[in-house]
Amino acid sequence: MPEFLKLLPPERALTRLLGHFSVRPEPEEVDTAFALGRVTTGPVFAPHPLPSFSRSTVDGFAVRAADTYGASESLPAYLKLSGEIPMGAAPGFSIERAHCALIHTGGMLPDGADGVAMVEHTQTTGEGEVELLRAVAVGENILKEGEDVQTGQEVIAAGTRLRPAEIGGLMALGITRIPVARKPRVGVLSSGDEVVPPGTNLAPGQVRDVNAYTLSALVESGGGVPRRYGILPDQAQPMHSAAERALSESDLVVITAGSSASARDLTAQVINQLGPPGVLVHGVDVRPGKPTILAVCNGKPVIGLPGNPVSALVIAWLFVTPVLEALQGLRRGLPRPAVAARLTVNLPSQAGREDWVAVRLLPDAEGFLAEPVFGKSNLIFTLARADGLVRIPPDATGLAAGELVDVVFL
Amino acid sequence: MPEFLKLLPPERALTRLLGHFSVRPEPEEVDTAFALGRVTTGPVFAPHPLPSFSRSTVDGFAVRAADTYGASESLPAYLKLSGEIPMGAAPGFSIERAHCALIHTGGMLPDGADGVAMVEHTQTTGEGEVELLRAVAVGENILKEGEDVQTGQEVIAAGTRLRPAEIGGLMALGITRIPVARKPRVGVLSSGDEVVPPGTNLAPGQVRDVNAYTLSALVESGGGVPRRYGILPDQAQPMHSAAERALSESDLVVITAGSSASARDLTAQVINQLGPPGVLVHGVDVRPGKPTILAVCNGKPVIGLPGNPVSALVIAWLFVTPVLEALQGLRRGLPRPAVAARLTVNLPSQAGREDWVAVRLLPDAEGFLAEPVFGKSNLIFTLARADGLVRIPPDATGLAAGELVDVVFL
Repeated sequence: MPEFLKLLPPERALTRLLGHFSVRPEPEEVDTAFALGRVTTGPVFAPHPLPSFSRSTVDGFAVRAADTYGASESLPAYLKLSGEIPMGAAPGFSIERAHCALIHTGGMLPDGADGVAMVEHTQTTGEGEVELLRAVAVGENILKEGEDVQTGQEVIAAGTRLRPAEIGGLMALGITRIPVARKPRVGVLSSGDEVVPPGTNLAPGQVRDVNAYTLSALVESGGGVPRRYGILPDQAQPMHSAAERALSESDLVVITAGSSASARDLTAQVINQLGPPGVLVHGVDVRPGKPTILAVCNGKPVIGLPGNPVSALVIAWLFVTPVLEALQGLRRGLPRPAVAARLTVNLPSQAGREDWVAVRLLPDAEGFLAEPVFGKSNLIFTLARADGLVRIPPDATGLAAGELVDVVFL
Repeated sequence: MPEFLKLLPPERALTRLLGHFSVRPEPEEVDTAFALGRVTTGPVFAPHPLPSFSRSTVDGFAVRAADTYGASESLPAYLKLSGEIPMGAAPGFSIERAHCALIHTGGMLPDGADGVAMVEHTQTTGEGEVELLRAVAVGENILKEGEDVQTGQEVIAAGTRLRPAEIGGLMALGITRIPVARKPRVGVLSSGDEVVPPGTNLAPGQVRDVNAYTLSALVESGGGVPRRYGILPDQAQPMHSAAERALSESDLVVITAGSSASARDLTAQVINQLGPPGVLVHGVDVRPGKPTILAVCNGKPVIGLPGNPVSALVIAWLFVTPVLEALQGLRRGLPRPAVAARLTVNLPSQAGREDWVAVRLLPDAEGFLAEPVFGKSNLIFTLARADGLVRIPPDATGLAAGELVDVVFL
């Protein structure tokens, strides 16, 4: 089994894969209202300042700050009321010396005014007069024009995944259409003479296709569009034809091989025939998932996953998801968020190998416990019973019971 | 401002809201292949065992373990080869004493066999004979029928959000359709005389509607279906009509009020007229977001959000998202995953109040730094510039520079 002679650690294997293809994501323009999770293909510049006019941040009175200096409860300042600022319109008048205007939160500051007195610090005395019990500083309780964003400023970088906040920011600027990376098309191939579609009644010796569906779901949540190319027999010719078609129609091809050694070798052979440079990594120093194949054929990434459902899903999460991010041009990777928990048992591991262990989170008095869900990597419900995964790094020979670990969600 | 007299901490406010409505999510059957992120409405039981037959986990030879006892490199056991087990079919023969059969990973164990010798520990000597260099234990290299799941076993609990692993597990069992909670319909109302639709060219004093879109995006990512009911003037009658219609057509109504005190009071008044019990919480001890309104009207939750975009989004994340989970019947809440980072500066806070501070993550030699993105709660790009939020708990008077904090992603 030549693949196991020189095993790369997962991070180096991924770096090698990502280094062998380059992508300039194809932009498509979509409604900003429907752009959640999409990745920008270019920077976004502000067409005008935000806010687009100076606004009050409180309910109160727009004043000239100089008119209020020295004002206190014992020695109030008295200002003449010039009127009320309407919401959603220009004031229509300016503030003369020793005058003020009623203004609401969000109202447009009138010319002449340079501060707002909070209504709580005022009293309306007689007709048309306001008593100020505190001085107002220049700029106080005001959001200045351009304080959030200036005209021409880059507000969203190229390669940003749009969250609700970015969608709101774009709407604030009137940008209702936005160019984003076309969703990567991912061709998913299953193989194995024993594998049948999920809707099939099982004959003895048959198992249903699991990997095509766990993978499709993972692709979907990573921003891609999965397309399944069916279940292929463990034979070179039909696998090659299907893989070739998938490669021509997709941005990424993922093949889940039969799990026998010969089926794995067949996958590598088929991938190598798809185009240069072919297989870059055959075998990764990780458990589960050692027999992983990483390849680039004619500029497109191709990934061969182990046949076992647990291995296939963990490996897809380690490799397919980052490749999808690269294909969308995602610029700024953030670390995986995790829940800190204490291990309930010792987890032994082989030095040099990275392990991912499925765990369930159990609340306890001080936080959470991480209880391993043991199960062979053939058992898909091992993962369904787990809340997340714990990494045992390659330089460790295991983790001790009671140790604080990071649980990442699947 | 009566709302600020008795402020509840966010957790208690949420508990009060969730305690005032009960939901039996309406099931709808969907294709399992498209059920990612949906929540099950009932438990799922296994219609048959998994695996449905005993299988080999390696490439090798199916044997009767008793025939191999004592075998070693110096004293091999010799077995007669009865044939090869086909993939995806029943063996068609059984293993007699002192016999064995070639079997591939995933192949069906023949009757009589109770273990599998790995091919690496064997040699095929003469015609029809296999030399075993190691003994095989009963059950070795076998995945037993039902080892993952037994017939009738509950494999997925009611109220489970389906991840790729559950979708795979369902497919393995041939369950290609699954009843899940209908997606909650969320009516979103904006109000404010100064607010105009995002596609509008701004006149002086106007601002574009941000909250309806940040909220819709958040609702979408929380598994709901947002429906926008337009931008309403700050007047009781039109707000009431729109809110009443939204309530009758939705499972949850969210109103983002104008930001002035009078607009907030108007929202509370309109909500109280929608049906009993009405407003349950008016004012939460949190920053940003103090003027939050939590209500239940005719058995349906209604949430009044502050008008400022940052406050509205943070509060929606704290309250709308958990309500959406409740409406879908999500049973088992997991803690929010986070990235641990060190604060770059001191963050003062008021004791008794919970604060959420927007931060940006910066990699450093030891991990990540959390650098606050300061900005008034009116500035939507404050959140767009941030990677996540840091919580300052109510019992703290702040957090110190260098302190390790949890950054949760927005």
